[in-house]
Amino acid sequence: MKPLTNETASAEVRAVWDDIKSTRKVAEVNNFWRYLANEPRMLKQTWESLKAIMGPGALDPLTKELVYVAVSITNNCEYCMASHTAAARAKGATEAQINELYAVVGLANMTNRLANAYRVPVDPQFKDEDS
Amino acid sequence: MKPLTNETASAEVRAVWDDIKSTRKVAEVNNFWRYLANEPRMLKQTWESLKAIMGPGALDPLTKELVYVAVSITNNCEYCMASHTAAARAKGATEAQINELYAVVGLANMTNRLANAYRVPVDPQFKDEDS
Amino acid sequence: MKPLTNETASAEVRAVWDDIKSTRKVAEVNNFWRYLANEPRMLKQTWESLKAIMGPGALDPLTKELVYVAVSITNNCEYCMASHTAAARAKGATEAQINELYAVVGLANMTNRLANAYRVPVDPQFKDEDS
Amino acid sequence: MKPLTNETASAEVRAVWDDIKSTRKVAEVNNFWRYLANEPRMLKQTWESLKAIMGPGALDPLTKELVYVAVSITNNCEYCMASHTAAARAKGATEAQINELYAVVGLANMTNRLANAYRVPVDPQFKDEDS
Amino acid sequence: MKPLTNETASAEVRAVWDDIKSTRKVAEVNNFWRYLANEPRMLKQTWESLKAIMGPGALDPLTKELVYVAVSITNNCEYCMASHTAAARAKGATEAQINELYAVVGLANMTNRLANAYRVPVDPQFKDEDS
Amino acid sequence: MKPLTNETASAEVRAVWDDIKSTRKVAEVNNFWRYLANEPRMLKQTWESLKAIMGPGALDPLTKELVYVAVSITNNCEYCMASHTAAARAKGATEAQINELYAVVGLANMTNRLANAYRVPVDPQFKDEDS
Repeated sequence: MKPLTNETASAEVRAVWDDIKSTRKVAEVNNFWRYLANEPRMLKQTWESLKAIMGPGALDPLTKELVYVAVSITNNCEYCMASHTAAARAKGATEAQINELYAVVGLANMTNRLANAYRVPVDPQFKDEDS
Repeated sequence: MKPLTNETASAEVRAVWDDIKSTRKVAEVNNFWRYLANEPRMLKQTWESLKAIMGPGALDPLTKELVYVAVSITNNCEYCMASHTAAARAKGATEAQINELYAVVGLANMTNRLANAYRVPVDPQFKDEDS
Repeated sequence: MKPLTNETASAEVRAVWDDIKSTRKVAEVNNFWRYLANEPRMLKQTWESLKAIMGPGALDPLTKELVYVAVSITNNCEYCMASHTAAARAKGATEAQINELYAVVGLANMTNRLANAYRVPVDPQFKDEDS
Repeated sequence: MKPLTNETASAEVRAVWDDIKSTRKVAEVNNFWRYLANEPRMLKQTWESLKAIMGPGALDPLTKELVYVAVSITNNCEYCMASHTAAARAKGATEAQINELYAVVGLANMTNRLANAYRVPVDPQFKDEDS
Repeated sequence: MKPLTNETASAEVRAVWDDIKSTRKVAEVNNFWRYLANEPRMLKQTWESLKAIMGPGALDPLTKELVYVAVSITNNCEYCMASHTAAARAKGATEAQINELYAVVGLANMTNRLANAYRVPVDPQFKDEDS
Repeated sequence: MKPLTNETASAEVRAVWDDIKSTRKVAEVNNFWRYLANEPRMLKQTWESLKAIMGPGALDPLTKELVYVAVSITNNCEYCMASHTAAARAKGATEAQINELYAVVGLANMTNRLANAYRVPVDPQFKDEDS
């Protein structure tokens, strides 16, 4: 699959790209959106979902970028690690915060497997809080 | 594997448990630590790692719990989801924040696979920021 | 590990390769089979399993290639994505179908995590249909 | 998190549910949509994405359900396996097709790891077809 | 899907089951083989692959069971953890060995993500040894 | 993130590196430890955990390296596959053993998904042995 360009994109695709550029105040969309434009319906749905959730809300935008990086590391998605780490830095993340984030992600992946291995039953107090 | 109890635990294990209880100001350790006590070296190392990283640092403790929940959802670790969601609530997470977190985790898992599928090359500006 | 060549392969390995070539009507086996030949028993078992399942059966061969691509994206296996996308195209997949496939894989990875996060109980009607 | 009911749902949530019910011609939405309603923005986005992609398109609806099942097995999402297997059957999947699907998913997960382990380089002809 | 029984199984299925029973010297096959019998071709291929690889070979049988447990923990497959832990014990694994195995699996899952997060380049000496 | 060097590392980091070098009897630490040094607390905790578990214990050191490789293949961590395969060879693993290991890892990933797909219930005798 090849990325679409401003010349090869349909009006429908360019309308989504224009909304990304004006929402994010950037001159061009990044590669992800150029490739995803091969499936215009999914381009539109993915952008609308990110726009609805990643902007202002219950969590601050930086926290959401850090969560995005954490999931991307766990799934080993190189593109997503690079783009969301850049976004986190643009939103103010310090090097110390990113390093600590990596440590938390490492530990969570370790204790997830230890809990699996021992098949640890959920404590009653955690059930109470969750349901 | 069975969980250890205050009666069956060695002095070495009880010392770790005592440190957990005094650090977290709780009366008893939760199930994870009772099962992990079957491997006393790993109990000690895991606790010391969590103590070093999950307490005060560059990121606030609530953000770190939310990251822990995000990784645990991605890995589908039921125990870890329950215990760290409870910890996030204890540190002040609102229901709106937890719901938004779930949405971010869902979206990240989706866009991770879309980036994989299209083998999107990393944009130069993300490389600049990252290295 | 190095790939085996027609010169370095044993008679046992060459016999499997010959069967791959005649079954698939290709002049040479692709890299996967040259590397896997380092473990001749596994080469034989893997080929016999694929031959038994990926040919004519209950599902048409194109559907099975698309499923293979979907799993490979989820696991982020670059080699497998490339080889099975090529196989899907050789069996008639259009660009529109491949783009739609990518969208479905993205959505499934998202809703899988949302179902995990909310620990959604299985509806009775789905249990009835499944058991 | 608790599922929302017709009584506790907002007008916004009920509007999405009504669209699901009329699109799918069902009397009630299943549990997934009742839990996801805790995050009304994500409920709306997820439904609109599924509606756009899972209906008529380049791939037939049954193929897309089978792909959904394949991803859900790979990720071990019990709810998603149950609901999408039921949907596949409702769209005409036979027992023989579902059993063959499971076999393909198993094989793909095996060969994905064998390709990883041997770090098999992508053959030139697969690159040609892909870019 | 329901498990097959000695009454509902075809002659082809029973022949595979008989070979499992005589090879493993057990009176009955366990549930995995009863469910997999719904797809007789895959039953046969899976058994022949396991028989070829899990018996005597370059690695001792206990080591191979421990590897099987390690993969099953990483993938969070409850059935596989239970059955292969039982097999490891039957082949002589001590409780101390199983606990240490769990620790190694936890650590590997942690350092895998730390290596991902920092995108650590492979050292030249590891490349030399590997190719 | 950039790797630290002997010149840019703090005394705290150098002390950990010195312990790695003397324990492993190597002249320099490999890249993993140079990158992880960006988070000195995690560098220290990770090293102490590996030192406690990967040395002499209930399992022989080669078995533990093989388990590490198996997990790294399952997670598709290229750095970890390269470094731990090299370590396994340094501890005496033969090519035949590494090839057989790859086969076991492939099979485990396959049967893990087949057990998921059929939702195979754990046999009573496996429960007895495990609890």
